[in-house]
Amino acid sequence: MDIPTYADVEAAHERIAPHIHRTPVLTSTFMNDLIGASLFFKCENFQKAGAFKARGASNAVFGLDAAKAAVGVATHSSGNHALSLAYAAGRRGIPATVVMPRTAPEAKKAAVRGYGGRIVECEPSTSSREAVFAEVVAETGAEFVHPYNDARVIAGQATCSREMIDELGELDAVVAPIGGGGMVSGSCLTLSTIAPKTKVYAAEPKNADDACRSFKAGHIIADDAPETVADGLKVPLKELTWHFVSRHVEDVLTATEEEIVEAMRLIWQRMKIVMEPSSAVPLATILKNKPLFAGKRVGVIITGGNVDLGKLPWAKA
Amino acid sequence: MDIPTYADVEAAHERIAPHIHRTPVLTSTFMNDLIGASLFFKCENFQKAGAFKARGASNAVFGLDAAKAAVGVATHSSGNHALSLAYAAGRRGIPATVVMPRTAPEAKKAAVRGYGGRIVECEPSTSSREAVFAEVVAETGAEFVHPYNDARVIAGQATCSREMIDELGELDAVVAPIGGGGMVSGSCLTLSTIAPKTKVYAAEPKNADDACRSFKAGHIIADDAPETVADGLKVPLKELTWHFVSRHVEDVLTATEEEIVEAMRLIWQRMKIVMEPSSAVPLATILKNKPLFAGKRVGVIITGGNVDLGKLPWAKA
Repeated sequence: MDIPTYADVEAAHERIAPHIHRTPVLTSTFMNDLIGASLFFKCENFQKAGAFKARGASNAVFGLDAAKAAVGVATHSSGNHALSLAYAAGRRGIPATVVMPRTAPEAKKAAVRGYGGRIVECEPSTSSREAVFAEVVAETGAEFVHPYNDARVIAGQATCSREMIDELGELDAVVAPIGGGGMVSGSCLTLSTIAPKTKVYAAEPKNADDACRSFKAGHIIADDAPETVADGLKVPLKELTWHFVSRHVEDVLTATEEEIVEAMRLIWQRMKIVMEPSSAVPLATILKNKPLFAGKRVGVIITGGNVDLGKLPWAKA
Repeated sequence: MDIPTYADVEAAHERIAPHIHRTPVLTSTFMNDLIGASLFFKCENFQKAGAFKARGASNAVFGLDAAKAAVGVATHSSGNHALSLAYAAGRRGIPATVVMPRTAPEAKKAAVRGYGGRIVECEPSTSSREAVFAEVVAETGAEFVHPYNDARVIAGQATCSREMIDELGELDAVVAPIGGGGMVSGSCLTLSTIAPKTKVYAAEPKNADDACRSFKAGHIIADDAPETVADGLKVPLKELTWHFVSRHVEDVLTATEEEIVEAMRLIWQRMKIVMEPSSAVPLATILKNKPLFAGKRVGVIITGGNVDLGKLPWAKA
């Protein structure tokens, strides 16, 4: 197992700087008053390709030697990693093939194609995804860039917390959504090195709480095809992310579907930013656990902004 | 007629600084490529109370002497001025009464009440609004702060362009939506003084194109109750805003309802910001008039972000 170090994070920071945005940190008096804490929202919804995943994908793609790069890259992803890899590959001018669930949001599929990526569809389950992907790799010989169980990807995502600490100084806590655990692992890697007093909380949908149950059990528990509005968070932990989650995460907090949608609507209404349901899970868990964060300086990672505007979760009413 | 001068703008800038945000300017590679110009989006959707109107309202409220302030303020407004006046009055701790059309978005009514303002409803027409308002003033004796035909309000709105020029240097053009003309007049006042080469374009819904027809005719033409998705832009010009529009505006450009909704969706999708339909009219007109802006540095004022998230204009599909 190739475990990334903080030296890899510094190298990633240099490597990807020309290809990503240094995203802004927003604050909101309303939110601070609501929670009784100082919240700093790191806006990766404004990132290239609309999500933090452009960091890890760019680090992997631009770190390839010329021969490997020429063959191209491939991945499977519930969405944002797919389009981030297509973005990075397009930027380097190499082919990218991505396996996506046929149920993935249309906006994400269109974006992958817009960056010049090729899509191969699978069923919306982990097992189907992995089977279809094996065929793609056999066909193309492309370099596999896993959406999170990859040292290059984790080192890339870790640059997000590096920017936060650089801008804000040490924080009491950082709260990030957890699906496969790439962003949380990157946050652990950076914070345990340059801001060791900063506690890392992982925020997860109750409907897809495999990371929470894994964390409590002390070993990885994986679910097949959980159902949640936070479509970026359905995938399970793998050994590399489990390495960081099990060692450095303070706690895994969960929120119900209703709580996630309410937090999402609150952020749109009050902060005037477009972000996807997965990105609302941190605020939803903070709202449920106010005493944990009272009086603290808390970084909140808004992981992405790729949402089907025609299918917003409160649109039924 | 009390015409504001640029000295009033500088005074407003000092007076309102503690009560408003210096809003960020966003850029987008996608938008620049689409138009073939350098666009600078001044994000007043992130402003206090969710719109640029907090500038003018704060300037009026905090400029009152103690005796007048104690009696309170009153206004009529299609929405954002109402809640901005309630915001400013609440911040100073004085009463605010606002006359709003009964059809105004629920989110705006709730926000007025949230700031402690009192709402009196009228029919959605200029004539009804003015009749109901006369009764309110007779009852309360409150200081009338007109949403735009008021020197204090125009001087306040003018601080927006002052910030843009301060941050960006001289621009080739600024495009702002026009309803009653407060923001456009403020832009004319500031730009004609500190950046005289910057052309001011007013952007208007074709369905409520009274400013365009006025501009061509050389005198004010007012419509009663036009219908447009850009609900902030239904009101007519008045003598004070006509003074600036007729003297300093380069042209009044119009866009259809479909073009406005398409531009709004494009901004949400690509720039990940929540803004209201009125704020999309500038981009809609720029998209229709690309040759006018090709190769230019163009300021685009995103005037507000107060939108009923449950009633988005593309939700029918």
